[in-house]
Amino acid sequence: QGTRDHAPAQAALRERLLGAVVSCFKRHGAAAIDTPVLELRETLVGKYGEGAKLIYELKDQGGELLALRYDLTVPFARYLAMNKITNIKRYHIAKVYRRDNPAMTRGRYREFYQCDFDIAGQFDPMIPDAECLKIVHEILSDLQLGDFVIKVNDRRILNGVFAVCGVPESQFIPACCTVDKLDKVPWEEVRSEMVGEKGLSPEAADRIGEYVQLHGGLDLIEQLLQDPKLSQNKVAKEGLGDMKLLFEYLTLFGITGKISFDLSLARGLDYYTGVIFEAVLLQQDNEHLEEPLSVGSVAGGGRYDGLVGMFDAKGRKVPCVGVSIGIERIFSILEQRLEASGEKLRTTETQVLVATPQKHLLAARMKLISELWDAGIKAEMLYKKDPKLLKQLQYCEDTGIPLAAIVGEQELADGVVKLRDVATRKEVRM
Amino acid sequence: QGTRDHAPAQAALRERLLGAVVSCFKRHGAAAIDTPVLELRETLVGKYGEGAKLIYELKDQGGELLALRYDLTVPFARYLAMNKITNIKRYHIAKVYRRDNPAMTRGRYREFYQCDFDIAGQFDPMIPDAECLKIVHEILSDLQLGDFVIKVNDRRILNGVFAVCGVPESQFIPACCTVDKLDKVPWEEVRSEMVGEKGLSPEAADRIGEYVQLHGGLDLIEQLLQDPKLSQNKVAKEGLGDMKLLFEYLTLFGITGKISFDLSLARGLDYYTGVIFEAVLLQQDNEHLEEPLSVGSVAGGGRYDGLVGMFDAKGRKVPCVGVSIGIERIFSILEQRLEASGEKLRTTETQVLVATPQKHLLAARMKLISELWDAGIKAEMLYKKDPKLLKQLQYCEDTGIPLAAIVGEQELADGVVKLRDVATRKEVRM
Repeated sequence: QGTRDHAPAQAALRERLLGAVVSCFKRHGAAAIDTPVLELRETLVGKYGEGAKLIYELKDQGGELLALRYDLTVPFARYLAMNKITNIKRYHIAKVYRRDNPAMTRGRYREFYQCDFDIAGQFDPMIPDAECLKIVHEILSDLQLGDFVIKVNDRRILNGVFAVCGVPESQFIPACCTVDKLDKVPWEEVRSEMVGEKGLSPEAADRIGEYVQLHGGLDLIEQLLQDPKLSQNKVAKEGLGDMKLLFEYLTLFGITGKISFDLSLARGLDYYTGVIFEAVLLQQDNEHLEEPLSVGSVAGGGRYDGLVGMFDAKGRKVPCVGVSIGIERIFSILEQRLEASGEKLRTTETQVLVATPQKHLLAARMKLISELWDAGIKAEMLYKKDPKLLKQLQYCEDTGIPLAAIVGEQELADGVVKLRDVATRKEVRM
Repeated sequence: QGTRDHAPAQAALRERLLGAVVSCFKRHGAAAIDTPVLELRETLVGKYGEGAKLIYELKDQGGELLALRYDLTVPFARYLAMNKITNIKRYHIAKVYRRDNPAMTRGRYREFYQCDFDIAGQFDPMIPDAECLKIVHEILSDLQLGDFVIKVNDRRILNGVFAVCGVPESQFIPACCTVDKLDKVPWEEVRSEMVGEKGLSPEAADRIGEYVQLHGGLDLIEQLLQDPKLSQNKVAKEGLGDMKLLFEYLTLFGITGKISFDLSLARGLDYYTGVIFEAVLLQQDNEHLEEPLSVGSVAGGGRYDGLVGMFDAKGRKVPCVGVSIGIERIFSILEQRLEASGEKLRTTETQVLVATPQKHLLAARMKLISELWDAGIKAEMLYKKDPKLLKQLQYCEDTGIPLAAIVGEQELADGVVKLRDVATRKEVRM
């Protein structure tokens, strides 16, 4: 349940999609790493907030207690701490596991790929953070998924908002989780969860509501820097100062047109400590709406400066910022689009079919195809002793093989091969 | 235990190795498929003989009872039956899981990659089987792993041998498992296991011993076809006939020089029904030995015509033959060889570092690198506001970046960039 096989057509589409993502990650100088699908259970404990109940655990068959990884970020942090690495730019593309309610048409599975790019190390503020946003911008543009917006916020700004609205610090993370639902439900519902389930006062909730419904650009940052309450809060001020710097860098990268500083963005995970962001695709066909409607998150990430320290015996921190591309949702969009277009993706790369027009020529086919393989040419033949020529050409058309290399009795006698262009039916002897 | 992280250098080596394997599989016209790491427990039951105790099971957290896949062959057969596919040539490269005793230096892990190529479908005898052997030959030659031999046998020949030696049919599979140990221990030990543990008569064991110590080529096949006892056995005769045909095809492919018909080859898995094979690397430095010493299996496979039928409600069979490349052992050989050579593999593909020789030029770097990225050029910059030029050039040398694009005050004023070849220190303004 919640998993699926990939047939050749899907595997080919996925290869194309992952190829685009990897090529962007390599363009930004990232090295690949790999970690096991299995992690010690204790490694995953206490990192995922409400997500913890979705972790797959292995049966105790003796030996270590194991679980399947829930994301690639925690294993990355574990890897850094274990190897005392304080400086790396890496990507990792691999499957992760969550015992979630699957919603397959929207690309939500129990086994799914994550495509992560992270920069770890002590650097000058906001330079790596800006690059992560540039990467999201490049990938979503490359894949031509339609219009999108990248929402940006900072956990420090949110914490500042909670503080000046009178939320006790122990309630910051639950409040964050509640605010995070604002992209799916209206403010009234979020407010009633805050007051009902999380026990905030109605006044505090209303004050939070005034902030978290704001979104804009540099102007909003300036406005909040002047805000009589927020400007008095140390962490909020730090966050806003960095947000301003980030916008400066994003201007140099030429991508502010797709960036929205959005105070409702909170992100569910516990480990974020600074900038957070999430990219959403906008509904194409929305002229009658006041604001473009978002159709779902396709990338997200942020800064997590404390996570590596949780795995170090001495608590040594390694600042990290990273982005995860929501490849499954993008895949399901591309899959639906391909289906709608009627286009057929080739599932193999075969360049030539080695064919014979008469019987008793299997040996000739085998000798020729062996020469082609040894020369690095992608070649197939039918696994029949005496296939009909028509069947062989039909196979080319069915699978998109552009050329047929035909050896018949005449060609054998003349020491030549007849090369046929399957589409145009033109033939040359060579 | 038994798993490992791949650091960038290892991930880069693995990418290169898998690239060579995939390119061979594609050269032979295979399509990719993917299946989940998780399978229903019941899917894996009864397919692996003694291997079954090594299957990783997931904890029962409600819902289906799951296990981690043990190989890629059983999931492939399950996939074919589930989708009623009767004809496909596919490859699959993915991790599998076994609770085995790890022996990491020899490349034996609990989580490891398998690289499988399989041909499913009803075809003329031995044509797909010959292609599998050609693939093994191509990959081991491409990777320049040194001398190797591909041992070939047929389960039908082995079963015929057991039958004419007086082994009851119910003992064929246990006898197979025992014979399979002949590559690691001398015949005397195998014989005593047959008589002691498996309960064969000493006479039967001795008769088996006469056969299974034979190996050779076409001449041996001819000799056994004349063997007074074997030639009377129907399955043995079928197997020997097909083996002769196989050698004919392998002669056309020009690879018989590396093929040995070896009656001691049995292979442990239950599901093989016909041709079986295994490639072993030979010790390089063996002039003083009578026969080259094998240093371990690096590929194996065979025909399994009954496995798909086990997953079909009506038992419909789909004949299959396939090969699995032992990528972990090959990887550990390449890793040791790389280490010995002192060569340093690049872990990134960055073409150019964007650098500045003076302070206060971060904006210029960011604008230039952004243009390079948008033009598809792999570029990096240091995440510092004002890095020293020496540090920037040092970074190029450390990571193998061949070019530095330098923008200083003069270049900015002149509207040019200085491109520096890091190795030769030559510079051009452009």
